[in-house]
Amino acid sequence: MTGTLYGLGVGPGDPDLLTVKAVRILSQVPVIAYPAPDEGDSLARSIAAPHLPEGRMEIAIRTPMVAGKFSAHDVYDHYAGEIADHLDNGRDVALLCEGDPFLYGSFMYVFARLADDHRVEVVPGVSSLGACAAVAGTPLVSRSQALAILPATLPEDELEVRINGSPASAIMKVGRHLEKVRRILVRLGLEERSHYVEHATMENEKVMPLSQVNGDAAPYFSMILVRESEGEGGP
Amino acid sequence: MTGTLYGLGVGPGDPDLLTVKAVRILSQVPVIAYPAPDEGDSLARSIAAPHLPEGRMEIAIRTPMVAGKFSAHDVYDHYAGEIADHLDNGRDVALLCEGDPFLYGSFMYVFARLADDHRVEVVPGVSSLGACAAVAGTPLVSRSQALAILPATLPEDELEVRINGSPASAIMKVGRHLEKVRRILVRLGLEERSHYVEHATMENEKVMPLSQVNGDAAPYFSMILVRESEGEGGP
Repeated sequence: MTGTLYGLGVGPGDPDLLTVKAVRILSQVPVIAYPAPDEGDSLARSIAAPHLPEGRMEIAIRTPMVAGKFSAHDVYDHYAGEIADHLDNGRDVALLCEGDPFLYGSFMYVFARLADDHRVEVVPGVSSLGACAAVAGTPLVSRSQALAILPATLPEDELEVRINGSPASAIMKVGRHLEKVRRILVRLGLEERSHYVEHATMENEKVMPLSQVNGDAAPYFSMILVRESEGEGGP
Repeated sequence: MTGTLYGLGVGPGDPDLLTVKAVRILSQVPVIAYPAPDEGDSLARSIAAPHLPEGRMEIAIRTPMVAGKFSAHDVYDHYAGEIADHLDNGRDVALLCEGDPFLYGSFMYVFARLADDHRVEVVPGVSSLGACAAVAGTPLVSRSQALAILPATLPEDELEVRINGSPASAIMKVGRHLEKVRRILVRLGLEERSHYVEHATMENEKVMPLSQVNGDAAPYFSMILVRESEGEGGP
């Protein structure tokens, strides 16, 4: 009997936003894995911590930020191999993913390496998208409105075209791209229609109009929500 | 002491995909409300059912499908008033929302009527977006890819332009728009890159390539996921 790899969405930050299913799986698997920075704590692990029983085997997937030492490709090969060893020996593994596993997560790099030869189950989680809208107190979209999900890492011209072309946009992973995004929104006359959210549902959560945000950088886990129009209104 | 209105995301269908927070709130509130068809059962209530203690007061928000009898506007005025009465008498109310409350939900119509004068907390839930990707076993987007969230109710020409302009699209609420969406995807040469998902995470879930879907209509709760390219690849 080989084990199952669970791609486990742990939600946006509040440990109470894990699903009942995710909590149950965490209580049963002998091995957990999670992305982690070169040094220091894993955010995904800290979100799941209140639900982790003692005595799990743990794999911290550390992707070196220093370019050139190892390629990220080699790093994921290495960790996928380590996870596969557990699966081949009959041990289930839960890979913790911030938010939802298939929405901009690094889970897909492990999934791509293991899904052909192993049992993999993806457990969806609350995405930062819904969480940011919830704490900002603003509906994302209604009825027949299109919504553009845009990584702030896109080139400035492409980002501008896409924001301008959509009635509502969610700009993810703002981080060091804050000034670029702000320039675009000011040019489009949308700064006043933009909400800024940082660390949604975490203890250090911040929510404010974009026009009140100082500085030219933001944490990686920040998002800007823009509604160009209120849509069709509705009932 | 007035009560709090909770906009409670109950997730895509599997009752185990409620969050720990949603389950706790359901165990505490004296009143629940939920959208329901003119006749018959509420999907949101059936998803939450295993987590509902006995003896709650219940409000079924029935929006008449028969045009002309009452306007949807009047209907939401009526139910918002009923909910406000409970809040004003110190009773918390949880309004159950399929998926996530602020992503195409009808919750916003109640929110718009009550948020100015009452305490409202939105509890984000697992959206059908993440659930459909999970059961289809396909990442939605990676790295610097934009994702278009598109209601199938959009006009055919607008839908075509938006699908064509985005590296990945999630087309929601397919229902009776199946043939329109299929025509567009065939014209764009994307039919073979499209996954069809119906009732994700529910017992009657169906997942298949779009090219294998027969008929010209689908259930309301169906989605088509399209990836025009595999993106930048990645590690």
